[in-house]
Amino acid sequence: MKDFETFKELQRKQKAYQYILTLASWDSNTEAPKESFPFRSEMLGIISGEHFSLMTHKEYVETVNDLFNNSEDLNERQKREIEKAKKNLDKIVKIPKKDYIEYSKLLNNAQKVWEDAKEDSDFQSFKPYLEKIIAMKKKMVSFRQKENEHAYDVLLDDFEEGMTMEKYDTFFETVKKDLVPFVKTILKKKSEKTASFVNKSYPVDKQKAFVEYLLGVFDFKKNRGVLKESVHPFTWNTHSKDVRFTTSYHEKYVFSSIFAAIHELGHATYEQQVDEVFDMTNLKSGASMGIHESQSRFYENMIGRSKPFWNTHLSKFKSMFPSQMKNIEVDDFYAAINRVDESFIRIEADELTYPLHILIRYEIERMIFNDEVSVEDLPSIWNEKVKTYLNLDVEEDSQGILQDVHWSNGMFGYFPTYALGSAYAAQIYYTLIEDIEFETLIEENRIDEINKWLRHKIHCYGSSLKPREIIEKVTGEPFDPKYYVRFLKDKYSDLYLK
Amino acid sequence: MKDFETFKELQRKQKAYQYILTLASWDSNTEAPKESFPFRSEMLGIISGEHFSLMTHKEYVETVNDLFNNSEDLNERQKREIEKAKKNLDKIVKIPKKDYIEYSKLLNNAQKVWEDAKEDSDFQSFKPYLEKIIAMKKKMVSFRQKENEHAYDVLLDDFEEGMTMEKYDTFFETVKKDLVPFVKTILKKKSEKTASFVNKSYPVDKQKAFVEYLLGVFDFKKNRGVLKESVHPFTWNTHSKDVRFTTSYHEKYVFSSIFAAIHELGHATYEQQVDEVFDMTNLKSGASMGIHESQSRFYENMIGRSKPFWNTHLSKFKSMFPSQMKNIEVDDFYAAINRVDESFIRIEADELTYPLHILIRYEIERMIFNDEVSVEDLPSIWNEKVKTYLNLDVEEDSQGILQDVHWSNGMFGYFPTYALGSAYAAQIYYTLIEDIEFETLIEENRIDEINKWLRHKIHCYGSSLKPREIIEKVTGEPFDPKYYVRFLKDKYSDLYLK
Repeated sequence: MKDFETFKELQRKQKAYQYILTLASWDSNTEAPKESFPFRSEMLGIISGEHFSLMTHKEYVETVNDLFNNSEDLNERQKREIEKAKKNLDKIVKIPKKDYIEYSKLLNNAQKVWEDAKEDSDFQSFKPYLEKIIAMKKKMVSFRQKENEHAYDVLLDDFEEGMTMEKYDTFFETVKKDLVPFVKTILKKKSEKTASFVNKSYPVDKQKAFVEYLLGVFDFKKNRGVLKESVHPFTWNTHSKDVRFTTSYHEKYVFSSIFAAIHELGHATYEQQVDEVFDMTNLKSGASMGIHESQSRFYENMIGRSKPFWNTHLSKFKSMFPSQMKNIEVDDFYAAINRVDESFIRIEADELTYPLHILIRYEIERMIFNDEVSVEDLPSIWNEKVKTYLNLDVEEDSQGILQDVHWSNGMFGYFPTYALGSAYAAQIYYTLIEDIEFETLIEENRIDEINKWLRHKIHCYGSSLKPREIIEKVTGEPFDPKYYVRFLKDKYSDLYLK
Repeated sequence: MKDFETFKELQRKQKAYQYILTLASWDSNTEAPKESFPFRSEMLGIISGEHFSLMTHKEYVETVNDLFNNSEDLNERQKREIEKAKKNLDKIVKIPKKDYIEYSKLLNNAQKVWEDAKEDSDFQSFKPYLEKIIAMKKKMVSFRQKENEHAYDVLLDDFEEGMTMEKYDTFFETVKKDLVPFVKTILKKKSEKTASFVNKSYPVDKQKAFVEYLLGVFDFKKNRGVLKESVHPFTWNTHSKDVRFTTSYHEKYVFSSIFAAIHELGHATYEQQVDEVFDMTNLKSGASMGIHESQSRFYENMIGRSKPFWNTHLSKFKSMFPSQMKNIEVDDFYAAINRVDESFIRIEADELTYPLHILIRYEIERMIFNDEVSVEDLPSIWNEKVKTYLNLDVEEDSQGILQDVHWSNGMFGYFPTYALGSAYAAQIYYTLIEDIEFETLIEENRIDEINKWLRHKIHCYGSSLKPREIIEKVTGEPFDPKYYVRFLKDKYSDLYLK
C-alpha cells in the first residue's frame, strides 16, 4: 500500500519535466530561431519521452491506484489531488501504446495538411485526415468509456469536468431560443460601417507602450510574470510566481491588440492569484477551461469593453494617439469597440455574435459523435448553419469549416467551453456587482480591488474545487445561462435599441 | 567491449538534457521573473540531477573508457570525440561524491558572500570563503593530477587545452618585457580627457536600432539565432542553428553597448559557422576559451575599432544621433574609441592596458598554486602589482581584488585565456591580411567575406581540432606572442606617437 508522500515525491519529479518542457514551448512560441526547429524537436522528443515514462511508470501507476481505491485516510485536498491524478492517468494508461503512437503521428501529419488546406481553401485534401482523426478519436475514447457513457460526454468532461451533452444541450437551447432572435433584431439596427478611427494606423511601438500602461492599470505583478509577443496570444504558467502571456500587435488593428492583451491579462491574473500552497501540486492551475475563459472574458468584456473603463483611460489613449483619435469622445469610442456585425470568422466575432459561432461547432460535434453525419457532408452542413444563425453565405471553406485549428489537433469538446466561459462570467458578474462598487472601482482606477474579490472568491482555489463547485460557491446557485442572456440583452439593447 | 554507436546514443540523450538546461539558463538570464527563482532552482535541480546521473552512469563510463583504451578502429574524428568525453568524464568521476557536493555547496554560498563583500568593499568577510575555495580546489585537482603534474597546469588545461604554466610564463614574459614599458610611454602621451561626445546621453531605443543595423553589417543569421538583453553580455549556443547572444544598453555609455555587441557577435558568428556535421557531437562548439576569445576580440578590435569600419558606418551612426555627434569627424571618433587610460577595473580597460590586468591575475594565481602566498596577503599583493604595472593606487578592495566574480566561482586558470585570445587574434590577423583585402572589405561593407575566411580557416572545425592545431593550421607556425606586441605597438604608436 503506497502512501501519499510517495505520490508527492513522484509528482515532484514529473513536475520538473513539465516545468522545463513548458519553458521550452514558451521559447518555441516566442523567440526560437526558425532553423532551430528540427534539432529542438529531436531534443524535446527525448525529454518528452522521459516525462512520459515517469507518468506511466509502474510505481506511479500503483501509487495513484492504491490511493484512489483507499482514500479513507486522505484529507479533502489530498483526495482531490488523487482524483485528478487518476483521471489524467487513465487518459494515458488505458490507451494501448500502439494506438497512442499511431494517433500522435496522425495528428502531427494532419497539422501541416490542415494548414495547407486552409491556405488553399481545399477541404478535399484535409477530408481523409479528418475522417481518420474522428475514427481514431472514437477508438481512443472507447478504451476509457464507462458502460452506457456517451463518447462525446467523455470528451466534454475532459475539457470541462462535470459537463455533459445533456447540460450543454440545455445551455445551447437557451442560446438558440433567446439569443438567436435577439441577435437578428440587433443586426437590423447595426451601424453600416465601422467608425473611421478603428482601422487607422497605430504605430506598434506606441501600442506596446499603451499595453504596458494597461499592465499597471490591471495591477499585473511583473516580478511574477512576463508579457511578450507571439503570433497567437496565449497565457501559460508553471506556478503562481511565473505566469507568462503574450499578445500580438497589428498596426492596422489596434483594438485587436488591446483586447487580446486584456483577455490574456484575465487568464494571467487568475494564475498569479492561485494560492501558493498549490504550487507544487496538480491543483496549481485554474479550475477548468470554462472557468479560465470566464475570467479572461470578464476582464476583456465586463471591464475592458465597459464605459466606466474608458471614461477613465480614454484620455491616456488619446494622448498617445492624438491624430488618430482627434475629436473622438467616449460615447463614439464605446460604441465602436462594441459594434455588432455578422462575420465568418469566430476569432474576429464580437461579444454578441460569438456564442452563435460556438453553437454551430457544438451542433456539428454532437452530430459527429452521434454518428449522424459523414465527413463528406460537413462543409455543407457548416454553411447551412452559418446561413441559419448568422445569415451569411460561406463562399470558401477557409472562412468556413477550415478556419479553426482544433479538429486537426483532435480537440473535440473544446469549443463549447468558450461560450460556457462567457456565460459563467455573466453569472459571476451579477453576484460581484451586488458585493462591490464595480463601476466606481473601475472609474477610480482601483481594479486591484476587483482582482482581490476574484482572488478571494475564485482564483485562490486553483483547481481544488470543481467548476460546478466554484459557480455555486460564488453565486449561491447552480450554473444558469439566464444571466448570460440578461447581460447581453441589457448591454446591447442599451447600445442599439434606444 | 562497447562500440561507438552506443557512445553516440548515450551522448544524444545527455545532449537533450544539456539542451533543455541551457534553454532554461538563457531564460533565467534574460527574462524569468524575479520571484520565480526559488521554484525554478528546485525544478532545475531535479533535471540537473538527472543529467548528472546520465553523465556518471555505469554504462556511459564503461563505454567511454572502453573506447578510449581501444581506439584502433576509430577514425580521427571519433578519436577526438572520445578524447574529449574522457577528459570531461575524469573531471567528474574521479572526484568523490562527498567532496563534489561539499564543493558545490561552498560555491553556492560563496557567491552571495562575494557579492556583499564587493558591495561593501570588505575583503575580510570574503577571506574565509576564498581560503576554503582554494583549499577545496587544490583537493579536487589532486584527485585527477597525474604524477609530477602541477595543480595549476591541470586548471590551465581545463580552460585551454594544451596550455601550461611554462607556456603562459613565456607569453606573459613577453607582455612584461615588451608591453609594460610601451604602455608607460603611451600613458605619458594620452589625452587628458575623454572627448565630450563619448559620455553624452544616447537614447536606448536608438542604440538598439543601431545594434540591429550592426547585425546586418556583420551578416548575423537571424533565422539561426537571437539577440536579446541581459545585465552582463554573453553568448550561448546549443548547436549551429540556435545561437543566442545578449548585450546591455546604458544611456550614458553608448560605446560600451556597441562594442559589447560586436564582441558577442564574434562569439556568435563563430558558433553559427561551425560545420553542422558536429551538431550532434561534443565537437559542436568552438575549439577553446582562448580561440573563442580570439574571435570575439577580432570582431571587436580588429574590425569594430578600426578606422575603415567607421569610414563606412560613422555616417549611419551620426544620422541616428545627430545632436550628440555634431561636428565629429572620423579621426576624432577613431581616437576616442581607442583612447588609452589607466583604470582599476579589468572589464572597463582599453585594448592596450587590458593584458596588464590579466598579467596581475595570472601572477597571483601562480603564487596561490605554488603555495607561495596566504590569502591574508592577497589584497596588498594585488595593490602592489596594480601600482607596478598601471601606476595606480587601489584604495578599495571593491576596485581591486574583489572586482571579478571568477574566484568566488572557483574558476582559477580562466583569466589567462582572455589575454591569450587577444594574442591569438593578432597572429591570425597577420595571416588574414596577407590572404584577403581586409581593409577594403570592411570599407566596402563586405564583412561576410571576412566571415567566410574565418569559417573556412577556423570556425568550421568546431572543437575537432585543438587550439594549438588551429593556430598552426591557420598561420603556419606555432603560437607566438610577438604578433600581439607588434599589433598593439603599430596601432598605438600610430595613434599616440606620431
